[in-house]
Amino acid sequence: MIKRYLLAPGPTPVPPEVLLAMARPMIHHRAPEFDKLFGEVRDGLKWLFQTNGDVLMLAASGTGGMEASVSNFLSPGDKALTINGGKFGERWGKLCKTYGAQVTELKVEWGRAIDPQLVADSLKKDPGIKAVYVQASETSTGVAHDIKTLAQIVKGHPDTILVVDAITALGVFDIKTDEWGIDVVVTGSQKALMLPPGLAFVSVSEKAWRLAEKAKNASFYFNLKKERENQQKSQTAYTPAVSLIIGLQEVLKMLKAEGLEQVFGRQANLAMAMREGMKAAGLALLPKESPSDALTAVLAPEGVDGQAIYKNLRVQYGITAAGGQDHLKGKIFRLSHMGYMDRFDVIMAVAATEMVLKGLGHPVKLGSGVAKAQEILMAK
Amino acid sequence: MIKRYLLAPGPTPVPPEVLLAMARPMIHHRAPEFDKLFGEVRDGLKWLFQTNGDVLMLAASGTGGMEASVSNFLSPGDKALTINGGKFGERWGKLCKTYGAQVTELKVEWGRAIDPQLVADSLKKDPGIKAVYVQASETSTGVAHDIKTLAQIVKGHPDTILVVDAITALGVFDIKTDEWGIDVVVTGSQKALMLPPGLAFVSVSEKAWRLAEKAKNASFYFNLKKERENQQKSQTAYTPAVSLIIGLQEVLKMLKAEGLEQVFGRQANLAMAMREGMKAAGLALLPKESPSDALTAVLAPEGVDGQAIYKNLRVQYGITAAGGQDHLKGKIFRLSHMGYMDRFDVIMAVAATEMVLKGLGHPVKLGSGVAKAQEILMAK
Repeated sequence: MIKRYLLAPGPTPVPPEVLLAMARPMIHHRAPEFDKLFGEVRDGLKWLFQTNGDVLMLAASGTGGMEASVSNFLSPGDKALTINGGKFGERWGKLCKTYGAQVTELKVEWGRAIDPQLVADSLKKDPGIKAVYVQASETSTGVAHDIKTLAQIVKGHPDTILVVDAITALGVFDIKTDEWGIDVVVTGSQKALMLPPGLAFVSVSEKAWRLAEKAKNASFYFNLKKERENQQKSQTAYTPAVSLIIGLQEVLKMLKAEGLEQVFGRQANLAMAMREGMKAAGLALLPKESPSDALTAVLAPEGVDGQAIYKNLRVQYGITAAGGQDHLKGKIFRLSHMGYMDRFDVIMAVAATEMVLKGLGHPVKLGSGVAKAQEILMAK
Repeated sequence: MIKRYLLAPGPTPVPPEVLLAMARPMIHHRAPEFDKLFGEVRDGLKWLFQTNGDVLMLAASGTGGMEASVSNFLSPGDKALTINGGKFGERWGKLCKTYGAQVTELKVEWGRAIDPQLVADSLKKDPGIKAVYVQASETSTGVAHDIKTLAQIVKGHPDTILVVDAITALGVFDIKTDEWGIDVVVTGSQKALMLPPGLAFVSVSEKAWRLAEKAKNASFYFNLKKERENQQKSQTAYTPAVSLIIGLQEVLKMLKAEGLEQVFGRQANLAMAMREGMKAAGLALLPKESPSDALTAVLAPEGVDGQAIYKNLRVQYGITAAGGQDHLKGKIFRLSHMGYMDRFDVIMAVAATEMVLKGLGHPVKLGSGVAKAQEILMAK
């Protein structure tokens, strides 16, 4: 008998209250009870996104939201600036190319954050750039890019929008959509929103809508203008993922009851305990700066295979973590602390990592990392 | 946001597979599908109780099973020997008196196990004793009595039965009902059987049935003879707790898949890790001998209120443990490791206890107990 623990950076654990809500009998999406649900959830999303603008819901995973954020704003031949500091930054480039954009990619060492000055320089050099694509939290490396500063920079360019993949950021740390002036924010349901996969969310600023008016790429299912028309009437253009939206209603209730500041404070405390716990256990982290509070990417010690750590966590201890991607495969393992997580999830992760490393013959003092994590978690 | 963890000695956590099974649409108890379910569960219970005799199911909590084990076997004026090593041993005495028995109570210091020789002496002194009542695991103190030896002693008395409250024992450690010759074994659903409360189980030997033939106490709902007649035909005398029996079917599948030896081995390893972890954190245990593998009763350190530990575990850390009862109130706290529990439940319990004690100003080295628990849990 082994219990299963989900500490991968998505899907994340779903709270029992939410599972129960989603198990309610199905309702029809063209009926008054859905309109009421949808209206409530729409308002909640504006609160969560810290925006007065539209937050559109799509029945898709996060990548669907990313695609919509490309196809709805760029026309073939348009210039786009993408920031590639990991697997998901790389994906922005692929998406932009798929829709015929001329892509300039700023490559960042995986494990580092973009220097905002490089973006400022690129925009100065080429004011024709229509959109800047970046991650708030790069899930493949556990690094957070400085969105607030990037937004300040892009704000100075009246014909350029900033598009932020906040899939592992929104609900983890502060993203002030309107106040900072972020034009498009994308997230998905299966991360800090504590839901199963299947919903993508896209917020759109007035500046971005103006760009969308001119965009010539084809989009039918991911047509944000059509969705806006429908969703402002508490409907969706196509069949929505009803049970997930019912679950979202519960999630928003939970988040509101806790309060945004408290959620961010809890996530920051868990993240710090995880990082400092791992370091106290003798491990080093992949991020050389600006670690994301959503997940922690840990370097496998010299001579230990990162994939073996990842695998043994799962097979011996029932913990699903994540390994490294591309050239980081075997070099790192990643543990999430976003969403429905509390202090004991972090203690478990650090304790299990110590046990796995010891089991693999690596010298580690059991309890050393846990003690540090306990100390940090007690302060909260 | 705080997650809730159930580490009290019952109810214990219910596995998700079992919760889902119990959420299935209700079935009728006088219909073929119930007969099939009931037959399967009956066979499974014989396997779990290690008996070829009847294991009767009652819609009641464990105390209902205890009452049935008194009222069905004793007549007013009959002599009973009860062993009182804690709150539940005391309950045997109350039950026997309620049904008019002449009770001889062997008092055992709470925290110690009965010396079987005392039972042998009592039976020798008074061969008219009809039944000996004892706990396999005394939940109020975390002590296990030596059932195997007691069964050997009682076996030598052809007109005396041994009745064992195995409510926090069955499914935790070995209870060989037939091989050891235990006449009546009682358990409940909400302990190692990983179910919500509401089912009691009573196994009955041929020797006990012979005594039941002569018993003159009134019993209508808890009438074991009537239940036997019905249950041998895969029915129950009165309306059964249908959803719990459906859950039990899943539980038995899980236990069979793991195997009895493996279940006992896991429970023993968890119990040892909990005990040694607490000791390594500088704490002493209540049991002076023979600790039960179901739960651990820990002495509050000098100058620290046991009720404050118990309360802070719940309020600050979301962990429901148990305090002490009667004269042990404020002196101990109890943590369960029976049922649906794995290594991280024990690590959490030890880590949280360290944090609570430190929070209460008691000098404890964070991680000291956890490290010891990790070491023991790794060996498994």
